[in-house]
Amino acid sequence: MMTAASGVVLILGLSTILCAGAAYEYQIKTIDVPIDHFTYTSEATFKLRYLINETFAQNTNDPNRPILFYAGNEGDIELFAKNTGFMWELAPKLKASLLFIEHRFYGQSLPFGNASFDSPKNLGYLTSEQALADFALVLRTLNPINGTNRARPVIAFGGSYGGMLAAWIRIKYPHLVAGAIAASAPIRQFQGVTQCGIFNQILTSVYQVAYNAECASNIRRSWTMLQNYSSTAEGLRVLNEKFKFCTNITKATDVTETFFDYLTDVYGNLAMINYPYESNFLAPVPAYPVREFCGRLDKNYTGAELLDHLQSALTIYTNYDGKATCLNINSSYDGSGIGDRGWDFQACTEMVMPMCSDGVHDMFPPQQWNMQTYSDKCFKKYGVHPHPANALLNYGGEFLEGSITNIVFSNGLLDPWSGGGVLRSTNDNIKIVLIPEGAHHIDLRASNPNDPASVTRARSVHVKNIQKWLDEYRKQQRVY
Amino acid sequence: MMTAASGVVLILGLSTILCAGAAYEYQIKTIDVPIDHFTYTSEATFKLRYLINETFAQNTNDPNRPILFYAGNEGDIELFAKNTGFMWELAPKLKASLLFIEHRFYGQSLPFGNASFDSPKNLGYLTSEQALADFALVLRTLNPINGTNRARPVIAFGGSYGGMLAAWIRIKYPHLVAGAIAASAPIRQFQGVTQCGIFNQILTSVYQVAYNAECASNIRRSWTMLQNYSSTAEGLRVLNEKFKFCTNITKATDVTETFFDYLTDVYGNLAMINYPYESNFLAPVPAYPVREFCGRLDKNYTGAELLDHLQSALTIYTNYDGKATCLNINSSYDGSGIGDRGWDFQACTEMVMPMCSDGVHDMFPPQQWNMQTYSDKCFKKYGVHPHPANALLNYGGEFLEGSITNIVFSNGLLDPWSGGGVLRSTNDNIKIVLIPEGAHHIDLRASNPNDPASVTRARSVHVKNIQKWLDEYRKQQRVY
Repeated sequence: MMTAASGVVLILGLSTILCAGAAYEYQIKTIDVPIDHFTYTSEATFKLRYLINETFAQNTNDPNRPILFYAGNEGDIELFAKNTGFMWELAPKLKASLLFIEHRFYGQSLPFGNASFDSPKNLGYLTSEQALADFALVLRTLNPINGTNRARPVIAFGGSYGGMLAAWIRIKYPHLVAGAIAASAPIRQFQGVTQCGIFNQILTSVYQVAYNAECASNIRRSWTMLQNYSSTAEGLRVLNEKFKFCTNITKATDVTETFFDYLTDVYGNLAMINYPYESNFLAPVPAYPVREFCGRLDKNYTGAELLDHLQSALTIYTNYDGKATCLNINSSYDGSGIGDRGWDFQACTEMVMPMCSDGVHDMFPPQQWNMQTYSDKCFKKYGVHPHPANALLNYGGEFLEGSITNIVFSNGLLDPWSGGGVLRSTNDNIKIVLIPEGAHHIDLRASNPNDPASVTRARSVHVKNIQKWLDEYRKQQRVY
Repeated sequence: MMTAASGVVLILGLSTILCAGAAYEYQIKTIDVPIDHFTYTSEATFKLRYLINETFAQNTNDPNRPILFYAGNEGDIELFAKNTGFMWELAPKLKASLLFIEHRFYGQSLPFGNASFDSPKNLGYLTSEQALADFALVLRTLNPINGTNRARPVIAFGGSYGGMLAAWIRIKYPHLVAGAIAASAPIRQFQGVTQCGIFNQILTSVYQVAYNAECASNIRRSWTMLQNYSSTAEGLRVLNEKFKFCTNITKATDVTETFFDYLTDVYGNLAMINYPYESNFLAPVPAYPVREFCGRLDKNYTGAELLDHLQSALTIYTNYDGKATCLNINSSYDGSGIGDRGWDFQACTEMVMPMCSDGVHDMFPPQQWNMQTYSDKCFKKYGVHPHPANALLNYGGEFLEGSITNIVFSNGLLDPWSGGGVLRSTNDNIKIVLIPEGAHHIDLRASNPNDPASVTRARSVHVKNIQKWLDEYRKQQRVY
């Protein structure tokens, strides 16, 4: 994974940064943080990992030289550092330090080592509040108040869940973070605020427009076709032969549950990483991977033909680099650095994002959202019940007027997560950036000749907002 | 205590409220809240107590009728409800509900019943963050978002630590609280921000001006005098006879540690409750109790004479109602409803407020602040070390520009806690109210004919700010 990700640097055309001698180069450090920031029941700590680059901030004595901080999300922090080229391009211009802090329970920041996923007694410490408190402690430690002078200004960045954290750290710790760029941050993808079907509707529209309308129709029909195959021993044999599953499937539910879930994830992932250039974030994929995928489902296929074309299309995601020898349907993030074990727990506790489909407005098998069923399943897996109201209770999000400031919410409208994002604001201090042609947090990626104009514009709006926050911060510099 | 506190109602002259049929009348309710809001290690809950009065909000359909919420501090919530007459006077004017939420580990809100003070495994859940999360959950539960309409506006109130919590809940949960009146809230009484000697300097000045300058001089000399008595068996016998300690003192340190600490607390308490009328908050005392106290230390006394006068002065605090049969020097809050057991733990964990004295700029025995000594003592008592930087890390307070809004910080300048309060603001949305003649959060008390003009003015500034926040909230009423 590391090698593959390093390769991305060149693919993404970061030659300017390479010239500056800092091609995603960073020091890897750790800091001891409390396992529990919110009680005094124990003094146990663990080593939280962060990446730091001081190259661009070295040659200035400006006490207000910024710190660009990435709020690590559900994966190895190196993955995010290497896929957030925007920060690397910005740092030399602002003479800024770069800081990427890993989220607890992901990457190498495991509070209980190998026992970290023992639930709920250890895994229960995996919460967004604890992660924000980790970030706060690292920020304060690396960026202390200097006598009667304020600390250096910190700008938070994050994409997806990291974008939620970037927005939330500005909301919860405004004294530590001067502003936040929250890219594709679905802070409203919660019960009672965003309808459960929106995600799959947007996702479907991406597949409808990527190549031609047959793509989504083929996918919509494929579920019954696959189910039919799953219902006989011969059908299962054919599926095993076609898809080359790493572990042979042996029963109908291997298809209608495991494989269906996998396919649903892959379709979502392909839409998220539907960038206009070759990339390797969740998996190595070509430019416009949804278009490539849909190009292989370009006619009204049925039966064995649909099966063949679906299998072929799928390899756009599963085997673009030709290295895969079999298909692991247990995770659509296999080898990417994304920590789906941890995320599954978070989705079962506070990050409960209701999803549903009806097969009419979307291309998925009809499936209602049932909180009770979901809750029971989570309890069975983890021994604790979801608290679906906690995120909105803790962070707000229903209404954003007045009380919070200095956040940009950006969303690509071709990103299924945009439905749970902040797309409107009546608060002058909360800025909205819409990227009609954008996929998942594309604006945080390194610039690329293939970027649509709306992405380039989004980045320049980000820069203007950041500059405004930094100017404000400078002006407010006062001894109290 | 309950009987005594009920008596206060009449003493404070709340006849108008009595006429309205709501003389501090409230329903006492409980709600199940998680013992730990910030992990998912357990699903244990406990019953948190709150007091509610709906009398004044009953006869209106205004969806924006306010909720006046008192952020309970370190004691029985009924004590604060009965000593926060300002809210009771305001409620009928604003057609508001009144809500007083008890702080966990105080009053009857004991998460582990009788075992609540087992440290650190149970007592460790006593933190300000958990308390704020309790408040947030109660607020959201009693004041839900109604479809696409916002909840009713909530105005937070609090005095002292409760004032800190009122400010902090507005900072941390701005979506739940429209504004906060933080009275005598020493949010800056922490390491590195406020000098450790300030509290005792202000305190001394109160004793210097209350009657005549001899008072503070006598107190300053009394420490050596008492130490001399403590050094002989005959001296100890005299002290026992004079002060009628509930438990006979038997050794020097009973005087130089236990009794000295007690006296220091009493002098602080007397200054805090130095109200211009008879009251019963921390103890039953006459109007201007410091003046009464100092009236008995009006000349340059020494030796046995100083002892006699000190003992007599002390009874202003210890036996004003003539009911005490002995002097309990283990707590200066005995029977008041204040939970000093819980507070001592908080002071040993995150509420570390450095105090020192030099005997020159103040009237106390010279005592340096030594974090290491303090820390060791705390660890010995509770098994955990203090985290003196946590409050500022979590809540900010060093600089208050720009990022936070809608808080009034009021401080009586005759209150020793004002030194750690917010006395200046360069942020238009943070208002400062100074009350030159005011003691500890006097502005939250019921109005009284003896109130100095500055107190009356402070309350009218509070009303104006509250009105402004409510107007803002009404205007922002939007469906998102």
